[in-house]
Amino acid sequence: MTSDIEIARAATARPIFEIGARLEIPADALVPFGHDKAKVSDAFIRSLRDRPDGKLILVTAINPTPAGEGKTTTTVGLGDGLNRIGRKAAICVREPSLGPCFGVKGGAAGGGYAQVIPMEDINLHFTGDFHAITSAHNLLSAMIDNHIHWGNALGIDSRRVTWRRVLDMNDRALRDIVSSLGGPANGYPRETGFDITVASEVMAILCLAQDLDDLEQRLGAIIIGYRTDKSPVFARDLKADGAMAVLLKQAMQPNLVQTLENNPAFVHGGPFANIAHGCNSVIATRTALKLADYVVTEAGFGADLGAEKFFDIKCREAGLRPAATVIVATVRALKMNGGVAKTALGTENVGAVERGSVNLRRHIENVKKFGVPVIVAINHFVSDTDAEIAVVKAAAEAEGVEAVLCRHWANGSAGIEDLARKVAELADGGTADFKPLYPEEMSLVEKVKTVAREIYRAGTVTFDRAATDQLAMFEAAGYGKLPVCMAKTQYSFSTDPSALGAPEGHVVHVREVRLSAGAGFVVAITGDIMTMPGLPRTPAAERIAINAEGMVEGLF
Amino acid sequence: MTSDIEIARAATARPIFEIGARLEIPADALVPFGHDKAKVSDAFIRSLRDRPDGKLILVTAINPTPAGEGKTTTTVGLGDGLNRIGRKAAICVREPSLGPCFGVKGGAAGGGYAQVIPMEDINLHFTGDFHAITSAHNLLSAMIDNHIHWGNALGIDSRRVTWRRVLDMNDRALRDIVSSLGGPANGYPRETGFDITVASEVMAILCLAQDLDDLEQRLGAIIIGYRTDKSPVFARDLKADGAMAVLLKQAMQPNLVQTLENNPAFVHGGPFANIAHGCNSVIATRTALKLADYVVTEAGFGADLGAEKFFDIKCREAGLRPAATVIVATVRALKMNGGVAKTALGTENVGAVERGSVNLRRHIENVKKFGVPVIVAINHFVSDTDAEIAVVKAAAEAEGVEAVLCRHWANGSAGIEDLARKVAELADGGTADFKPLYPEEMSLVEKVKTVAREIYRAGTVTFDRAATDQLAMFEAAGYGKLPVCMAKTQYSFSTDPSALGAPEGHVVHVREVRLSAGAGFVVAITGDIMTMPGLPRTPAAERIAINAEGMVEGLF
Repeated sequence: MTSDIEIARAATARPIFEIGARLEIPADALVPFGHDKAKVSDAFIRSLRDRPDGKLILVTAINPTPAGEGKTTTTVGLGDGLNRIGRKAAICVREPSLGPCFGVKGGAAGGGYAQVIPMEDINLHFTGDFHAITSAHNLLSAMIDNHIHWGNALGIDSRRVTWRRVLDMNDRALRDIVSSLGGPANGYPRETGFDITVASEVMAILCLAQDLDDLEQRLGAIIIGYRTDKSPVFARDLKADGAMAVLLKQAMQPNLVQTLENNPAFVHGGPFANIAHGCNSVIATRTALKLADYVVTEAGFGADLGAEKFFDIKCREAGLRPAATVIVATVRALKMNGGVAKTALGTENVGAVERGSVNLRRHIENVKKFGVPVIVAINHFVSDTDAEIAVVKAAAEAEGVEAVLCRHWANGSAGIEDLARKVAELADGGTADFKPLYPEEMSLVEKVKTVAREIYRAGTVTFDRAATDQLAMFEAAGYGKLPVCMAKTQYSFSTDPSALGAPEGHVVHVREVRLSAGAGFVVAITGDIMTMPGLPRTPAAERIAINAEGMVEGLF
Repeated sequence: MTSDIEIARAATARPIFEIGARLEIPADALVPFGHDKAKVSDAFIRSLRDRPDGKLILVTAINPTPAGEGKTTTTVGLGDGLNRIGRKAAICVREPSLGPCFGVKGGAAGGGYAQVIPMEDINLHFTGDFHAITSAHNLLSAMIDNHIHWGNALGIDSRRVTWRRVLDMNDRALRDIVSSLGGPANGYPRETGFDITVASEVMAILCLAQDLDDLEQRLGAIIIGYRTDKSPVFARDLKADGAMAVLLKQAMQPNLVQTLENNPAFVHGGPFANIAHGCNSVIATRTALKLADYVVTEAGFGADLGAEKFFDIKCREAGLRPAATVIVATVRALKMNGGVAKTALGTENVGAVERGSVNLRRHIENVKKFGVPVIVAINHFVSDTDAEIAVVKAAAEAEGVEAVLCRHWANGSAGIEDLARKVAELADGGTADFKPLYPEEMSLVEKVKTVAREIYRAGTVTFDRAATDQLAMFEAAGYGKLPVCMAKTQYSFSTDPSALGAPEGHVVHVREVRLSAGAGFVVAITGDIMTMPGLPRTPAAERIAINAEGMVEGLF
């Protein structure tokens, strides 16, 4: 079997100016990075303001399992499929993080014959966006300690500095540190630590900002910590916002690359899908909507987290009105949801698919609550049997939606024509009437409860006392209208990652809340959330090298 | 008066492919970063191997003072001047560091009408080289702690890990930290810290490596620390070298930009000039030598550090044979060397220039010891008087070399034609017979003593006991043939920064030595060397912002 990287390397990339021309982007509006990557200039983006928008299509999925559901692959495939049937379509996906490539998983930008290229560049430094975010974040960090060192005129309580530092690296040793040791020249020692760059609030801000002005406003609104009287200190109080915006100026421009089939792909921004909203940048999505008739995008994790945040945070915030949603399912992943072990997935098991289909049905029900029409994409694996596929189709039909078998992984756009036609029909049908799950006027506690009840189907929602106190404080400080950003396991509707299928009546306990005042959401944390991964016993880095032909080996 | 940034913004940049064409670089050998920056592909660089080399001209300077000597400005100006008189010339300079731009000084890439553009990009993320170095360095750091965490099969003594982490940021709080706090999941706590990226050994390695293979070899040879039996542990023992090379693959390609007069400029690499050798990359210099008839380059600090390291480390290592050396002097800086306070530099003071000229004469004497012919460039300031300039010329003549007045800062290449002609003559004259100051067979202690006596004119050279023990250990381990890299104040020939002019008979005390086994030199440290700067009370960052026209303000 041909590997992803072999397929990617065999692809013939077209010059990026040609890809841009497909969307009528003039050459001087593209800032090239090599011959196959470019940023779209902000002057050009501003010039698009009055154009009508294309149709926005969200690709989401059932709860992920080790069997894989292929959300990015389907996003890429559907974009290619729409182009194949003569529609002017572009895709918008997230940029992968550099650090984890050296840990377990290797890089990713789709798979099989539905990939975004150049795969290696996208997974390594790409156009430097994440490095810029790291710099901007850490400049603020340095300015905080510097301010305290030089007399602390703002009265920052050094025990209550919440702003940490970031690196795009899996480095457990930096999770908890004591800084400023070594004497007076090095400042005041305090406990702090590093997160991975994708967990930075700066990342979430870059992905939600409408333009550079909005970016700078949001950066200034970051709360870096508190005074002894618990009043917040903002990044703008440290005068850090201007320099941070300068560091992010180039990173704010969306990146244009191409699929294996030479169709336009925007790959821009990549916030965590737990403590942040897990979607590519608003500016990329909006730019794509001005340039293409159909824009296919995705959101991190399963639909309980990804789609909900896409709708309630990104679409609400950016005024986007999605026209259709595709929920990706695989027979294998449904089988796992039906209780089958990973080792037995190759054997036909219609009963297990049926049992597991409750997961798919639940997600369909949920997405409908946002007023967006749904279609299911069955991402085909060679081991799937007709009987198993029939069960998935029947499950979708029982929810009143269609499920379409797709073979884009094996056949590229030729394998997903059927879905493309139906998605275009759905999006053109005008049935969408998008509305967020809750109004902004609802209290923060009620917003959390609404998501937990309506989407997770919890029976009870409890809060740590400190969490309710803090939510009340946030409301008193004027942050009550913000949406909530749930940090929950991606593996289950519940907070128990082992509860597959469609659990209900469970308890959701919010143990901590955090205010991302710059990004514009309140994070509600259920369970343990890891914001700085570690490397495994044998890191992938040990196998990564440049081979005799000058090619990168071991990255995938 | 027009500011540097105003001049830079008023310049008409030519498309980078046009600049490349001036050196006969085909368009497909350039990897563009925007329209005015490009990397030169390694395939193209390999194809140049058998071409003859152009003439290499080093620009160095007297000891720097707050009055400024204008080394980079003269390097740029001389390159433009050589092109003006019809010679095919290119320049090679270092990349500036991002972190310090937010501290005191603002960015820099020459000045007046002798600058490299695009100035803002070069001073910010440029082509991402420093970010790549940060990533490669910190991947190794993460792999060290990860190895210890997972059982420490290599038996690393966690008290003797010498490899720290880096950030391209002025952040004193990170100088000394305790990492891996927070319990067993976060590894074993230990003392460590961060340096600024330019101080990374990876930076020195990138700047000395001949090609990607050599790069990977050198990365593997990095000593990350020691076992309890004091035996060294190498980066290759951790299998980090391959992945580090992958992270640096693109960064190894030299960056091509242009001067204000649209002449080719390679801006690549920027190691510290104290704990490292302070020169742009070997690969940029060698590439430029294959493409141009004259290559003008510079080395950090004054000639006592910069030129000595350029000759003894870079040229020796890379087999370069410089054809001429330009020593830059200013009347103002010589006046300061003659004892005048900064506030009185505007007043004519022939006597002070005369007293200060001993500094220039000493540098001329020193550079001649390397067998390279010398010429002096007097970098003109408006306050200079004819009588003062005459004194500088006479001082140079007393050493048997010519001093030429240059007005490139005010007039660009038109102001430096005379120097350009004379430098070309000198370089073409065939009088150069380059030899390093000491043979590689000399013991490490004797190498240090030789530099201290011959260049610094010390009377006595002393070593901390631990330093001599370590030098003996380095020799026993097979590192005796390496050159030494002196870490000394840049402000004086001596180790006392206030001893201006031409002190002699002083004591040089080596308090610490470090082995940079990957870069290939032994660092001898005299005095305090700061490898992580801090921000000042009012950081430049507070003034940096994007203005209403979308331009960066406050960076310069």
